[in-house]
Amino acid sequence: MKLLGAIEAGGTKFVCGIGHEDGTIVDRVSFPTTTPQETMGQVLSYFAGQDVQAIGIGSFGPIDPVPGSPTYGYITTTPKPHWGQFDLVGAVGAACNVPIGFDTDVNGAALGEYTWGAARGLDSCLYITVGTGIGAGAVVGGKLIHGLSHPEMGHILVRRHPEDTYEGFCPYHGDCLEGLAAGPAIGNRWGKPAGELPADHPAWEMEAHYLAHALMNYVLILSPQKIVMGGGVMKQSQLFPLIHGKLQELLSGYVQHPALNAGIGNYVVPPQLGDNAGLSGALGLATLALNGA
Amino acid sequence: MKLLGAIEAGGTKFVCGIGHEDGTIVDRVSFPTTTPQETMGQVLSYFAGQDVQAIGIGSFGPIDPVPGSPTYGYITTTPKPHWGQFDLVGAVGAACNVPIGFDTDVNGAALGEYTWGAARGLDSCLYITVGTGIGAGAVVGGKLIHGLSHPEMGHILVRRHPEDTYEGFCPYHGDCLEGLAAGPAIGNRWGKPAGELPADHPAWEMEAHYLAHALMNYVLILSPQKIVMGGGVMKQSQLFPLIHGKLQELLSGYVQHPALNAGIGNYVVPPQLGDNAGLSGALGLATLALNGA
Repeated sequence: MKLLGAIEAGGTKFVCGIGHEDGTIVDRVSFPTTTPQETMGQVLSYFAGQDVQAIGIGSFGPIDPVPGSPTYGYITTTPKPHWGQFDLVGAVGAACNVPIGFDTDVNGAALGEYTWGAARGLDSCLYITVGTGIGAGAVVGGKLIHGLSHPEMGHILVRRHPEDTYEGFCPYHGDCLEGLAAGPAIGNRWGKPAGELPADHPAWEMEAHYLAHALMNYVLILSPQKIVMGGGVMKQSQLFPLIHGKLQELLSGYVQHPALNAGIGNYVVPPQLGDNAGLSGALGLATLALNGA
Repeated sequence: MKLLGAIEAGGTKFVCGIGHEDGTIVDRVSFPTTTPQETMGQVLSYFAGQDVQAIGIGSFGPIDPVPGSPTYGYITTTPKPHWGQFDLVGAVGAACNVPIGFDTDVNGAALGEYTWGAARGLDSCLYITVGTGIGAGAVVGGKLIHGLSHPEMGHILVRRHPEDTYEGFCPYHGDCLEGLAAGPAIGNRWGKPAGELPADHPAWEMEAHYLAHALMNYVLILSPQKIVMGGGVMKQSQLFPLIHGKLQELLSGYVQHPALNAGIGNYVVPPQLGDNAGLSGALGLATLALNGA
């Protein structure tokens, strides 16, 4: 079977792996994200001895995923030191002469869940990660969403919870979704890290309010057949039933579909690929690149 | 050249036409929307003498656009008397034995602008109509958006304008986008029909606030390459510069793209097909049906 390379390029670490077109991952390793010189040196050494036929990269962003653009393949305006305007695809391509697939980490994760995970067999899905930041990607009509650039769904505007006085921490928008509902917002608002709050703390009702508002807008705009919620904050499994209830309340029966009624528990779900979602997604991007898609 | 049939099925009137695959419309006629029996009788008589190869229908909704569903082709839960659970595709198909394309009126209009109008040559676009209601459709990666059902982007939640005390008129969500920003909301809020308010009335600043909030979410979720705004309310051309400015303010430079900076005036635009957008869209749906897409 053909060997494929996968790179999950994160702001904290780069996870690299080798796998097959059927989604199997046969080897994985990770390197801390320090400088491009150091980190990419380790990444490229790892792949140097491997006979991969294509490489997929799911990257933190913002990135330029538009083929033909002068900065295609770059990590663009990230505030992360050293990585702004870094030509990631160029660096990999200079060392490995194989087709390269490149997209956001969350579009990658959406592709992974669509191909091998919770949305297998469907035609569309949305993947959202709620952790130190919030990001989402989506497959629509079997294809990853692109347009002007890539989606930035974590920064949509949501209505404030009536009892919330926290100002939000997004440096661009203050109290956008990420500013109000990513992990740091929970920590700042309640004075201790999200992971230390008990499952019945009011923090979770407020968190579910914001996430359900975001999901309502995603449902009305994209109409995905499955919503997969991952990331550190979503390990708080008490959030799922709260989000299910609030999403139904907000939709008020306007969109009539079994998935939004009795089937809601099977509509908004955790990642089936678990912590492999990111690397599997990169493997999916490699598969697309191999097949010239 | 092959003849194609087009039906723009609206809540007030059905516009029917004959055209070609190149977008030319050679004949058009309209019938008031009364009962299915009466209106469909007129529609089917019109097409009876025409040798069309396919028919496209862009319909008011909600509709069931999912092929294979037991109610595919129906207008479903509309509050419009007589038309709930009406099998529109079935009625047309029983009389005309040709391929039928069926979608929402706004997905149709998005397809029309994408194929022959303001978004010609691009890969994605969003069309939004702001009139007695608000609806939007979109082309992503060259295809109309579908999933669980069709998008219902007019009902997303937006943040209230700080000076707005109007409660909203949407029977499902109260103060969703449609409830706060469709034509009737303007009329109810200011005590006279939108069309009678002068161009410098504060109504338009508030209207632009709501529409820019919606556009911000559409941009962050779908990243369309062009946004086309039509419908009765958008005939107030003073809205465009207000929306351009507010959208840029809300995005705060987060998404770096020329279209959102100096190019904003050419990014959020009126329909190029003008009042033909709906019928042209239906013609586009007929073309897709003819080609088996």
